Amino acid sequence: MTTITSPGVNNGVDVTALLGAREALTAAPEAARFQWRARCEWVYGTHARTTIQDFSGLGAEQSHRTAFTVDTDHPEIFASEDNAMTPVEMVLAGLAGCLTAGVAAVATNRGVQLRSVTASLEGDMDIQGILGIDPDVRNGYSGIRVRYEIDADADRADLEAIVAQSQKRSAVFDIVTNPTNVTVELA
Amino acid sequence: MTTITSPGVNNGVDVTALLGAREALTAAPEAARFQWRARCEWVYGTHARTTIQDFSGLGAEQSHRTAFTVDTDHPEIFASEDNAMTPVEMVLAGLAGCLTAGVAAVATNRGVQLRSVTASLEGDMDIQGILGIDPDVRNGYSGIRVRYEIDADADRADLEAIVAQSQKRSAVFDIVTNPTNVTVELA
Repeated sequence: MTTITSPGVNNGVDVTALLGAREALTAAPEAARFQWRARCEWVYGTHARTTIQDFSGLGAEQSHRTAFTVDTDHPEIFASEDNAMTPVEMVLAGLAGCLTAGVAAVATNRGVQLRSVTASLEGDMDIQGILGIDPDVRNGYSGIRVRYEIDADADRADLEAIVAQSQKRSAVFDIVTNPTNVTVELA
Repeated sequence: MTTITSPGVNNGVDVTALLGAREALTAAPEAARFQWRARCEWVYGTHARTTIQDFSGLGAEQSHRTAFTVDTDHPEIFASEDNAMTPVEMVLAGLAGCLTAGVAAVATNRGVQLRSVTASLEGDMDIQGILGIDPDVRNGYSGIRVRYEIDADADRADLEAIVAQSQKRSAVFDIVTNPTNVTVELA
């Protein structure tokens, strides 16, 4: 169990530890350099399986408690077997998970007890892009909407501010909204 | 089982169906407009669970064969319970799954039999961004590297061309490397 840190508020986020980490890393910024890793194996057709376990940060090699595995595939209407969510849906899951963790952390820091938090996401994509029909249509999303329903001991203005602060500090929101350099090569 | 479409090549990708879809959607581009959706529930602390089932496309409501669920969390060194991969690692899984499906599709279209395809991904992130230590450090990745090992009936130049074509048509590669508008709001 995660330590309860705000008097009367238990969202399961240890804000004291996070504020301590911020102080420690301000003094030792090289320890803030993390590397996240993934290993993806092709299964069959458009079905792939990605395993995640080790990473580095705080100046050392780190490991998750266990290996985590997720699958991706394409749906039957794309003539695939639909063994798993699509990769673009997985990006929505990453975005939702990042913003939702942020909502819990910011709410805790502000002394707001959460009862439930639900995000509904929609991403628009014109598949003329990935099919190579129209070069003016991008491959990815033309836009994504995230809508939160939050049941908590706070008024609407406080909840809006919590959601806004989560967005401001979200790694995946930044990844999706801003360009990131990606190199893809054959070993 | 997916239909085998290239003589002597079976990677499980029905290229004939994909080429047919391209032809059909060229004639009816409004059917190419898809909407992908996700619903994320906060569990506890930084732990969240995202469920994906329905989407729209081809001018109709669509559904996966079943609901797919993935969890995200933060690791113990962030004072969390490490119940699942982090959201930023999930983005790597989406990127890997998208590029790997593309490798299988392009290889099939080019008559290349695959035996194994493995991608290793690394993403660099300075967590001074998400911790709010240094406003000049971005929240997301400073860069991502994807490295493929492919065992297939093809020479190195052909495999490099397959990987390059997959990248060119990848939805998630586009999402990560180019900006996408995301709105986050309270219902």
